[in-house]
Amino acid sequence: MIVSALLTSVGINLGLCVLFFALYSVLRKQPCNLKVYAPRLVAEGRAGQRSHFNIEALLPSAGWVRRAWQPSEDELLDSCGLDGVVFNRIFIFCLRVFSVAAIIGIFVLLPVNYLGDHLRDIDFSDLPNKSLDLFTISNVKDSSNWLWVHFSAAYFITGVVCYLLYTEYKYISNKRIAHFSSSKPQPHHFTILVRDIPLHGRSSLSDTVETFFMDYHPSDYLASTVVCRTSKLRGLICENFGANCIGVMSQKSQDNGTDTENLYRRITHLKSIPSSSQNQSHTGFLGLFRKNDDLMGHYAKKLEDLEQNVRLEQSDISAGREEVRAAFVCFRSRYGAAKALHIRQSTDPTEWVTEHAPEPHDVYWPFFSTSFTQRWISKLVVVVASVLLIVLFLLVVAFVQGLTYLEQLEALLPFLKNILKITVVSQIVTGYLPSLLLHLVASLVPPIMKLFSAMQGYIAISEIEKSACNKMLLFTIWFLFFANVLTGSVTSQFQIFLDPKTIPERLAVAVPAQASFFIAYVVTSWTSLSWELNRTIAFIGDLISRHCSKTTDDEFQIPSIPYYSEIPRVLLFGLLGFTYFLLAPLILPFILVFFCIGYIIYRNQLLNVYQPKYDTGGRFWPIVHNTTIFSLILMQIIAVGIFGLKKLPLASSLILPLPALTLLFNDYCRKRFLPIFHDFAAETLIKKDREDRNDPAMEEFFDKLVTAYRDPALMPIRHSTNSNDHNSPLLSSKV
Amino acid sequence: MIVSALLTSVGINLGLCVLFFALYSVLRKQPCNLKVYAPRLVAEGRAGQRSHFNIEALLPSAGWVRRAWQPSEDELLDSCGLDGVVFNRIFIFCLRVFSVAAIIGIFVLLPVNYLGDHLRDIDFSDLPNKSLDLFTISNVKDSSNWLWVHFSAAYFITGVVCYLLYTEYKYISNKRIAHFSSSKPQPHHFTILVRDIPLHGRSSLSDTVETFFMDYHPSDYLASTVVCRTSKLRGLICENFGANCIGVMSQKSQDNGTDTENLYRRITHLKSIPSSSQNQSHTGFLGLFRKNDDLMGHYAKKLEDLEQNVRLEQSDISAGREEVRAAFVCFRSRYGAAKALHIRQSTDPTEWVTEHAPEPHDVYWPFFSTSFTQRWISKLVVVVASVLLIVLFLLVVAFVQGLTYLEQLEALLPFLKNILKITVVSQIVTGYLPSLLLHLVASLVPPIMKLFSAMQGYIAISEIEKSACNKMLLFTIWFLFFANVLTGSVTSQFQIFLDPKTIPERLAVAVPAQASFFIAYVVTSWTSLSWELNRTIAFIGDLISRHCSKTTDDEFQIPSIPYYSEIPRVLLFGLLGFTYFLLAPLILPFILVFFCIGYIIYRNQLLNVYQPKYDTGGRFWPIVHNTTIFSLILMQIIAVGIFGLKKLPLASSLILPLPALTLLFNDYCRKRFLPIFHDFAAETLIKKDREDRNDPAMEEFFDKLVTAYRDPALMPIRHSTNSNDHNSPLLSSKV
Repeated sequence: MIVSALLTSVGINLGLCVLFFALYSVLRKQPCNLKVYAPRLVAEGRAGQRSHFNIEALLPSAGWVRRAWQPSEDELLDSCGLDGVVFNRIFIFCLRVFSVAAIIGIFVLLPVNYLGDHLRDIDFSDLPNKSLDLFTISNVKDSSNWLWVHFSAAYFITGVVCYLLYTEYKYISNKRIAHFSSSKPQPHHFTILVRDIPLHGRSSLSDTVETFFMDYHPSDYLASTVVCRTSKLRGLICENFGANCIGVMSQKSQDNGTDTENLYRRITHLKSIPSSSQNQSHTGFLGLFRKNDDLMGHYAKKLEDLEQNVRLEQSDISAGREEVRAAFVCFRSRYGAAKALHIRQSTDPTEWVTEHAPEPHDVYWPFFSTSFTQRWISKLVVVVASVLLIVLFLLVVAFVQGLTYLEQLEALLPFLKNILKITVVSQIVTGYLPSLLLHLVASLVPPIMKLFSAMQGYIAISEIEKSACNKMLLFTIWFLFFANVLTGSVTSQFQIFLDPKTIPERLAVAVPAQASFFIAYVVTSWTSLSWELNRTIAFIGDLISRHCSKTTDDEFQIPSIPYYSEIPRVLLFGLLGFTYFLLAPLILPFILVFFCIGYIIYRNQLLNVYQPKYDTGGRFWPIVHNTTIFSLILMQIIAVGIFGLKKLPLASSLILPLPALTLLFNDYCRKRFLPIFHDFAAETLIKKDREDRNDPAMEEFFDKLVTAYRDPALMPIRHSTNSNDHNSPLLSSKV
Repeated sequence: MIVSALLTSVGINLGLCVLFFALYSVLRKQPCNLKVYAPRLVAEGRAGQRSHFNIEALLPSAGWVRRAWQPSEDELLDSCGLDGVVFNRIFIFCLRVFSVAAIIGIFVLLPVNYLGDHLRDIDFSDLPNKSLDLFTISNVKDSSNWLWVHFSAAYFITGVVCYLLYTEYKYISNKRIAHFSSSKPQPHHFTILVRDIPLHGRSSLSDTVETFFMDYHPSDYLASTVVCRTSKLRGLICENFGANCIGVMSQKSQDNGTDTENLYRRITHLKSIPSSSQNQSHTGFLGLFRKNDDLMGHYAKKLEDLEQNVRLEQSDISAGREEVRAAFVCFRSRYGAAKALHIRQSTDPTEWVTEHAPEPHDVYWPFFSTSFTQRWISKLVVVVASVLLIVLFLLVVAFVQGLTYLEQLEALLPFLKNILKITVVSQIVTGYLPSLLLHLVASLVPPIMKLFSAMQGYIAISEIEKSACNKMLLFTIWFLFFANVLTGSVTSQFQIFLDPKTIPERLAVAVPAQASFFIAYVVTSWTSLSWELNRTIAFIGDLISRHCSKTTDDEFQIPSIPYYSEIPRVLLFGLLGFTYFLLAPLILPFILVFFCIGYIIYRNQLLNVYQPKYDTGGRFWPIVHNTTIFSLILMQIIAVGIFGLKKLPLASSLILPLPALTLLFNDYCRKRFLPIFHDFAAETLIKKDREDRNDPAMEEFFDKLVTAYRDPALMPIRHSTNSNDHNSPLLSSKV
């Protein structure tokens, strides 16, 4: 790629960004779009709905930037939980790191590269047609002493990053402890999940659990809830309402994770349709809901049957016939729960296995419904599916890579020859299209990864998303980075690991060759950030639903931020920044711009759009830390290779202590901070327990705690009463 | 090697064995040797000292075999602790495995090999001059269908071994739990070691510990003992008594591990010399102790000074000036200790780090004296020293290997040419000398490994020996197996790991080539077992000391069995058995004989000679289990290579699931049994605590517990009173 192509790409993307920003600021001001752009504010009743027309509302403004910038971290914590703060800290951390990196890169490394002797040609006249390679390390002469500048830069940036990583880890772990200390009593602090409860002849599982814990933890034990297999019940509900459910839920299918809650809401919603459609004279825009009136009688019958079936099934389950060998056990104190959690309970280590209980609304109930064999098979399926996904994606990447080389594309599709000869088209195709395609295809992967993780048998949605986050990281790093760098067949890519000695050298050859591709990729990513700001898909969906169905659906769902896809995406740019820091420092300012835009946009979205679905207490940070360490090590390995290729063996050997030191640093951080992200110390727990001891509200809390972990599928009585209240006259006559 | 050479070797070794056994049975009957051959019995007063001369005592008999055979496992447990039982179970396990293996090997694989077509020559006439290769798998024709017999044997033996491993693991973990349940209250069950106690301004460490545990564990906390840095004290004692100490202790330098106890004993012993030499008219055989009388006055002065210095130093230490940031914290219940152990105490994971306390007499006190930097440096030193040891040993092995090829030796040392032409000499040199040399050199390594482990900073002697055991295993497997198999330079040996794909093939070529060497090695090991029975070194040492010094030293030390050298040695034969099971089944009967002899000899030694120094409760078994799994996997990898070489690719691929299954089995065992060897379950602990609750003896136990973990260097008052009682009139006049 030449400089002018890069400039074209930057121009297009900057233009698009400004356009999208202006569009957003206008759209946001329209009251009808509030549900798309500020669902949180609407839900919390903080969105002032202006009814009178205002010319100001049609002019773009930057007020939203100020409003996103202003809130302090404590306000962010209150509104988005610690996970939101951690997500925000990723940007702050990256901004700090890449400010330093960009200063060194642009003012030290770039001049050294450009003035290098290798392709030397001190002639600024024809800059637009110069290759970007002039700005990379490949322009420096072999065994030139100027390479020691790169060498020092590698040591310097590693030091800076490690220092910042340490302070950030410390800051977030202190935040985590402070967050816990200031939190109200919460069910999952007092509860553990016990699995593999042994079966004792005739006595029921609940009796076994009760006896065991009353015996060994008499002073701490409060109550227990044995988990039931409710898949039949779920099946029953889904089967009957299948068609309707799918229609109603399709829009929210992205977060269809688990919630029977949702299902029930849908059911009651469906129930409410007949009565509401009688009251209001609305009919569907396309007549989609016309048949409602005719179907009334049919539905009433169906609903009655279902309710009857569900009730029968529930009584079956309550009678203990479908109990799973797992139970949520609640204790009177946090320390009591910790004792049962950390000390192995049974002489047989495969019985009474304890683990942290997730928050009640974070439990992934379907997991309990599957049997051990089913889970084992699902795991195998996940492996096979992952392999298929890998192969599929490698094909896509190979095609995308082809686009950056016009000749290959022309050879492949000869009829495009004439079109591609137009300068603008060819510049768009080489500079913009490949990375746009990559962005698009990559956006398909997160839901698949989440599905895979859900099949693996985690008991909490947060765990599923954490696991999906790790999968996405692997995917992102491998497919967006390595697959682009190590061109060639799939097998030849993996063969690099069979010959570990040549890794640095191969990377040192391959990585710089793709510098221009990744610069273009970073630039394109600015636009994809504006997409996120505009919530394009949600906006279009809302538009269609408003104009087509015209039902006034008061109950809209507030989306939650998909950390599992956003964190790896952000971290990829960190990886790119580190790996190209020495090789092609030109990428750094573009990455810095990405993080600046990202910082504002995500703060805005966190405050206005997304509602936290769970609170892991910042447990995503260790993932960020590890990825950064990995990126550093990768940078250092490439440096070893580069100095080797540039015939400076002394520098190549002297860089070797750097990865060792980085790993030592990582090891220290693992010891110093990681345990804090796993569980809280006795000190903290006991202090919290003592604070609560004299709190009169605790009795009430314990009363609620006893029923906090009941499977929502087993709690229809609440829904029934709900429906009795206002929703379902049909049922109330029956009950 | 040809058959006749093997027979020579077997003959020599069998003869030596019988000779040594006879010698033992005669020597053992002599009352003067009782301290060498039955020190335990002497110490326990169970050795009937016959004074009248008896002709029977000069005739060899097999009574000791019967006496070693008879005791049941419970009797063994009572007398040697669970570690002794585990050591015994290794032999039982190996006997079972290799009985099955030998039956298959001799009656199925050996005929198949011998009748193989490759070197076929159905002619039993000249058997003694046939090469041993006739009995190995190399005799089977390429891609012969007979190889499927070997294939099935691999699957069969893996199944048998896994089944036996599982039952053995289960048996030993049940034993461990039962042993704990039936044990009396012991200090280390109620105690934990706390390290990295934070320093709080003015308050002393003991106050900090007291405050912390009284605050967070008020109901469980009993007392704490802050560890002091006593290196100065130790130095003081050693400096003053250096010369004498070395002289007196040289004999016991092997177990010089730690004990200041010992030092004090030596001091009092020295003190007793003047008075006793005045009373008795004995003088040293060689006049070694002649000068005692002249030195009396000098010594008296020195002793006074020392006592004064020691007392000053102790009062310094007691005043808390030399406290280490570590303390032994005692609790009122086992469960209380477990709570503090398993739940992280402090918000900062690097403070208040808890770990299991060893038995009081198992604590390695010098460790606490070294500072953090010293320990860090020692670790580095250990690494460097290990590397040096590796290089040194590879040279030795290379020389020993040369001996099996007479031509090489003749080329190297041409003047031996004539001697080597004598048949007997050449047979001894090829069949016996190499393995004898290897045995000898290998016997030097265990003390070095133990020294290395001691430098690494373990807090218990048992931990040091466990770590030394692992080091020895690595050493044994690498240097006695791989270094012999993979001939060539050190670098070429390690390069095999850089090219993992070729490992099976290279092993399949190299391992069978060394079959005859290892058969000879196994046969030689019989004799080394008889050395163990005769305790040759101890016997000679005793003989010399009895005839030279003639002091009636009533206080003799009972040796403890060095598990760290014996277990790896035994396990090596298991490894050899597994790897050569398919390749050269001829080795199996010899290995079986080894385990039979070993079983009897070690039972005899455990019952009569060795006194257990500590009780890990069978924690050596997981090491045995892991090594066996490793041996199995190695066998399977070699099988993959062999079937590949023999051009039976189908078998080569079909064997691949076998290592996967073995690893799965190992994973299951890790989950099912390993936690039992780390700590006991809440269930077990609480049951034990309840049993003790009404025991009136517990108060007395707790009183003792408070002082159980005092550094012996700080307890001289006892020694002083001792000396006042009877030993040192010199001092008593002063005090």
